[in-house]
Amino acid sequence: MTANDPKLKSWVDVPSGSDFPIQNLPFGIFKTKYLSPVAGVAIGNTVIDLVYLHEHGYLDGHGLPPGIFNQRTLNEFFALGRKKVREVRERLSQLLRHDADELRDNRAAREIALIPMSECQMLMPVTVPNYTDFYSSEEHATNVGALFRDPKNALLPNWKYLPVGYHGRASSIVVSGTPIHRPRGQVKLPDSDAPVFCPSRKMDFELELAFITCSNTTLGRPIPLKETEDHIIGFVLFNDWSARDIQQWEYVPLGPFLGKNFGSTVSPWVVTLDALEPFRAQGPTQNPHVLPYLAFEGARNFDIQLEVLLESPKGEIATLSRTNAKYLYWNIAQQLAHHTVNGCNIQVGDLYASGTISGPSPGSYGSLLELTFNGQKPLHLPGGEERKFLEDGDTVIMNGHAEANGVRIGFGTCSGKLLPAVG
Amino acid sequence: MTANDPKLKSWVDVPSGSDFPIQNLPFGIFKTKYLSPVAGVAIGNTVIDLVYLHEHGYLDGHGLPPGIFNQRTLNEFFALGRKKVREVRERLSQLLRHDADELRDNRAAREIALIPMSECQMLMPVTVPNYTDFYSSEEHATNVGALFRDPKNALLPNWKYLPVGYHGRASSIVVSGTPIHRPRGQVKLPDSDAPVFCPSRKMDFELELAFITCSNTTLGRPIPLKETEDHIIGFVLFNDWSARDIQQWEYVPLGPFLGKNFGSTVSPWVVTLDALEPFRAQGPTQNPHVLPYLAFEGARNFDIQLEVLLESPKGEIATLSRTNAKYLYWNIAQQLAHHTVNGCNIQVGDLYASGTISGPSPGSYGSLLELTFNGQKPLHLPGGEERKFLEDGDTVIMNGHAEANGVRIGFGTCSGKLLPAVG
Repeated sequence: MTANDPKLKSWVDVPSGSDFPIQNLPFGIFKTKYLSPVAGVAIGNTVIDLVYLHEHGYLDGHGLPPGIFNQRTLNEFFALGRKKVREVRERLSQLLRHDADELRDNRAAREIALIPMSECQMLMPVTVPNYTDFYSSEEHATNVGALFRDPKNALLPNWKYLPVGYHGRASSIVVSGTPIHRPRGQVKLPDSDAPVFCPSRKMDFELELAFITCSNTTLGRPIPLKETEDHIIGFVLFNDWSARDIQQWEYVPLGPFLGKNFGSTVSPWVVTLDALEPFRAQGPTQNPHVLPYLAFEGARNFDIQLEVLLESPKGEIATLSRTNAKYLYWNIAQQLAHHTVNGCNIQVGDLYASGTISGPSPGSYGSLLELTFNGQKPLHLPGGEERKFLEDGDTVIMNGHAEANGVRIGFGTCSGKLLPAVG
Repeated sequence: MTANDPKLKSWVDVPSGSDFPIQNLPFGIFKTKYLSPVAGVAIGNTVIDLVYLHEHGYLDGHGLPPGIFNQRTLNEFFALGRKKVREVRERLSQLLRHDADELRDNRAAREIALIPMSECQMLMPVTVPNYTDFYSSEEHATNVGALFRDPKNALLPNWKYLPVGYHGRASSIVVSGTPIHRPRGQVKLPDSDAPVFCPSRKMDFELELAFITCSNTTLGRPIPLKETEDHIIGFVLFNDWSARDIQQWEYVPLGPFLGKNFGSTVSPWVVTLDALEPFRAQGPTQNPHVLPYLAFEGARNFDIQLEVLLESPKGEIATLSRTNAKYLYWNIAQQLAHHTVNGCNIQVGDLYASGTISGPSPGSYGSLLELTFNGQKPLHLPGGEERKFLEDGDTVIMNGHAEANGVRIGFGTCSGKLLPAVG
């Protein structure tokens, strides 16, 4: 793809270290003081108004329906399919490269179409019809199994045969910057037979990456693994906030429910699979061999560096974890092939999260549950504070980027502040 | 409510034993050879076109937005709220009562607005943004716990403290009459360490009742139990098709996934909570006492008779189960109060299913898993056939109705045919 050429530069200013060079061009939904929600693309510290470009002919020749960007979500745009979205990204890359004068030299157009990111409020990029959360990090599943069940048999018998997953709650997925209230719920304390009702005392984050689908398939028709990536448009960062004490009491036998569905946070920019193409990586060796419907060729993981920061109410910022998406045992092609092998249909805008991404070392664990051994070993923050779990007023900040050949494809920030329980 | 008066008769013919007397008036979405999908109301064997009534002034004075019934789903109508939908049902009752001449004596209007049910194809009544499945029958949870885990501790410790539930897949919910393909998936046979991939050999149904919500609430704001029913518009029958062998291998620790999400079937008519008002019943005594947020007053269960029939490919029809919704341990007010107590928001059109409804006797179990003791005791059908689980070509038919004082409020049929695995 020409748009991925590491030598490309843009006439739009892109500060060094920006997540959004011309090789990225992620899509999002934004509004400003003057603009209703519309679709945009990020470059450097600038958001480009796609409605303006479309209405003024800059995207002509691609058969884009009228009004396709004048929407509160990207669902209709993504529904045009992977190939069409790729065409638009390639066209945007041509328009924005340093030697393209069409938009660069039209000052009036530039002044309207290019908006400083600081003036934009980002919104949910898609309406999410269905949300699934996988459990695809071997390190995470092992750590949790050891803490909640049995260290000797931490991984359950099915774990290496199928990408374990469960359905999550779509309604409570919110965009980065939306505060989350500490949930109340039933908690069973160790010294009691009966549960009590109280605000969660074990508030946690989970660092995840989520992919978004761009097609509606027919019920009863599986997606063969080879075709899965045609249905995936891109990724966002995902914080699967978790109330560990609520979760532990409720989750047997039907899985997590109120311990999770009070809120999940996504980053606002959908980074395309196309932009991440140069960062494919081999995942861990899968042993035992997978069943034929899960067999794959090529590099299906992505070398994406991830980190979790905590900003305390005192304003101190500490790095809690650094890890990488390449550690995931199950890849996105396997996840989607498995999810649909029984005929389950997918829809445009569906969100499929990886599950917590933990690496091999303690500093690379993707949740406080693991980082503090379920609160037994508090983290000492550089400013002198201590955390077993999250405290009211804490802001959890997740960042992610891939980097090679001087090009950095980043996600921007996925952040959320934990507010006290309501009422 | 006047609309519930058992003495009311309609000028529209209502055959004896009909599910849809004038006291019911459920809402649905239908199309015909000549009409695109629109909203209608059922009475006897007739569907009344609500677009026609609205456009011709029969529903004036209620502040209904233009085009509210000219939709492929009832979501926007239900979003007007419980009170407004009640007003419309009351108005329809007035229009259709035997002594109301306004529509009755306008032959031209009647010929357009009244359509024989046999000419209507019913569609999904709502778009379902979120689907939750509870597990609220004590008899079912006990039977399943005994079969899958331990007969001595069949009910898990949390079961009597909270209405256990999990998130299901919204995309694969289909309307009655839609065939379902037998899913393929991973199954672990008892004599092997590794799973095999094959069509499910343990296909089952689950008899459930589901309620639909009619409001969008704010994330972080629980719905107090007393207010829950203001957010519930009505019920449909629900068949939670299940592949027991796939479910058993995959479900630990995160709950059911591919064993369920290949398809669920709803009945097409939304029977309003208002129409079911005369059929309130006391549920089972709850012991231990529930926590205060789950405490309720009054009769919160509903006396709804339910049955499951099986039509074999040979055309023989057998009754497999007869039970009643009044047996449910947890009621809908408790389910919704629990679901939102952590701040989880609800949306218009959300579907909340009861979980399998089993009664106290073997003939009242709501799944084949229970009826055949996981295939160990086959059912002998009257025509000489035998069933451990469902066979290809079987049609599962669910019916439900409440009856008192000569009035029968029914749901129509929730049926689906099981087709062979694809490919």
